[in-house]
Amino acid sequence: MSKFLSEKLKDLDPYVPGEQPKNREYVKLNTNESPFPPSPYAMRLAREAAGDVNLYPDPDCRVLVDAEAETFGVSTENVIFNNSSDETLNFAFFCFCDGKRGAAFPDITYGFYKVFAELYGIDYKEIPLKDDFSINVDDYIGLNRTIFIANPNAPTGILLSLADIEKIAAGNPENVVVIDEAYIDFGGESAIELTKKYDNLLVVRTFSKSRSLAGGRLGFAIGSKALISDLNALKYSTNPYSVNRMTMAAGQGALLDREYFDSCCKKIIENREYLVEKLKAMGFSMTDSTANFIFAKSDKIPGKELYLKLKEKGVLVRHFDKERLTDFVRITVGNIDEINALLKAIGEII
Amino acid sequence: MSKFLSEKLKDLDPYVPGEQPKNREYVKLNTNESPFPPSPYAMRLAREAAGDVNLYPDPDCRVLVDAEAETFGVSTENVIFNNSSDETLNFAFFCFCDGKRGAAFPDITYGFYKVFAELYGIDYKEIPLKDDFSINVDDYIGLNRTIFIANPNAPTGILLSLADIEKIAAGNPENVVVIDEAYIDFGGESAIELTKKYDNLLVVRTFSKSRSLAGGRLGFAIGSKALISDLNALKYSTNPYSVNRMTMAAGQGALLDREYFDSCCKKIIENREYLVEKLKAMGFSMTDSTANFIFAKSDKIPGKELYLKLKEKGVLVRHFDKERLTDFVRITVGNIDEINALLKAIGEII
Repeated sequence: MSKFLSEKLKDLDPYVPGEQPKNREYVKLNTNESPFPPSPYAMRLAREAAGDVNLYPDPDCRVLVDAEAETFGVSTENVIFNNSSDETLNFAFFCFCDGKRGAAFPDITYGFYKVFAELYGIDYKEIPLKDDFSINVDDYIGLNRTIFIANPNAPTGILLSLADIEKIAAGNPENVVVIDEAYIDFGGESAIELTKKYDNLLVVRTFSKSRSLAGGRLGFAIGSKALISDLNALKYSTNPYSVNRMTMAAGQGALLDREYFDSCCKKIIENREYLVEKLKAMGFSMTDSTANFIFAKSDKIPGKELYLKLKEKGVLVRHFDKERLTDFVRITVGNIDEINALLKAIGEII
Repeated sequence: MSKFLSEKLKDLDPYVPGEQPKNREYVKLNTNESPFPPSPYAMRLAREAAGDVNLYPDPDCRVLVDAEAETFGVSTENVIFNNSSDETLNFAFFCFCDGKRGAAFPDITYGFYKVFAELYGIDYKEIPLKDDFSINVDDYIGLNRTIFIANPNAPTGILLSLADIEKIAAGNPENVVVIDEAYIDFGGESAIELTKKYDNLLVVRTFSKSRSLAGGRLGFAIGSKALISDLNALKYSTNPYSVNRMTMAAGQGALLDREYFDSCCKKIIENREYLVEKLKAMGFSMTDSTANFIFAKSDKIPGKELYLKLKEKGVLVRHFDKERLTDFVRITVGNIDEINALLKAIGEII
């Protein structure tokens, strides 16, 4: 920390991404990436775009905005593209929270929400999940705070129903409700349709998971024109060109190659079912995940020990050193070879 | 604007990027892009990286940090890479300015400084340039503000000497001095060496201009370990992965292909001299630019009229509707064909 750093940032506690060790090759099941490469069409368009990177990209990402507006039956003014959903979420915290209007989110959820709130000095309330890690919807009514809900939630994978999301949107008409659908494509139902009815509902999506573009950095949000206009004002006041040409082209290819997308999502769901079944047979229990990861524990071994022993064996999963989560490990649903390598390693450990 | 937008942002006046009209093909000399494609090696590495974009990029951009640390003889802890120099500048405003510590920059300079200051509610002082658009160094001593200087300056292209930068760094030991060297490679001398002596000096660079990567989004900063550590804390609190894999690879290629870089810079300088000479012969006067653009005016035609008439003829330049700038147009130094098209159009107009 320098002596020049603003007082407001002196206690900053940055986000800690999943480890990316370089010392050896791992079976990487710790950061919820897709085990599948991007669509061949996405790669082709990205490679073509590489020749034009001397020119600025289109800050409005029109080609992507047009495509998603058509897909979801909304106007282009209802869509914004950003450099990852993290950027969109960051903007949502900055736009819709302040000293007067705090934030609220579950006590167990995506770790970045807390970081954003602390970054901007926003008062935030962490609302405890129920014992089974599900959300108690009544806790979210009339909060007078901007609400952030990952759906399905992380690291549990548990899905909230659209009826419940609608209750929350309807129950907070004077506050924005942000639904972070990073993992929605693996079995959940999107709340995007509800944004047509609720002007306070903002749905945030990423291309990192189901579109195999974690390394490309692309996310978008859909909401009322006024909400999107606010986010665009912030985009044009920070880094309007944050989505580069190659990523924009890759995103376009990923959107157009619907067949590849469907087949990847289907495989992840099948692999998840396979993984769940095998782990259950080994005595594990887990939350009911609709994401591309599972959240599992075994009575035979504490979560941290399992994580460490798997790492020794060259398999990375994620462990959270937090009271209610410490028994568990979060395992990304990889391809079949990765899953079998994981199962073999677990079999040797327990 | 939504009713949910934070009070602090209600008067936001976002940055206006140079126009990118889609209605016809233009000779585009309005956004200071490179007329040359990225290095073939940069393109090759970017295209190879497209196959791995299902995996997150390295948030530390180690391959790039290592390369620049070696080039400039600094430690890797003195270097940070970001998604464009706009992101770095944004971070510098957020980290090193606040309600107590304001900002200062010339009244005529990169338009984004003012936007950042207003975004964060930072008190800022715009220090008038002298009549010849040069900086009066004495105005920048003991300001007790975080200082932002584009060197060479925009839109004038005028260079401040290293001796003057050193005076400013030495004259503000309790405040950060940010030198924005977006255009330094076209004839200027970098202040990076001075960062070894002054712990308050931060040099910000971009790959958008001399590296032909405006569409890739890549920038970096060099400064004391403490300054870089502050910027990294903010990076890890907003969007740690903001530099995508393809851009990182392109950046690596651009750095390694030194010969291509040198040849592009040399051509821009030659083309600038050619453009200046021809315009002078047509009665124009201009500032002494060491950038990849010139700032020129003619007694025969007001700047705005020239801009509009050139646009009609399919040539885009940039005009600033601001008192001291209104006589001028800013013209990006393109390739020879683009320059000749511009000269022909000007010849027809005046």
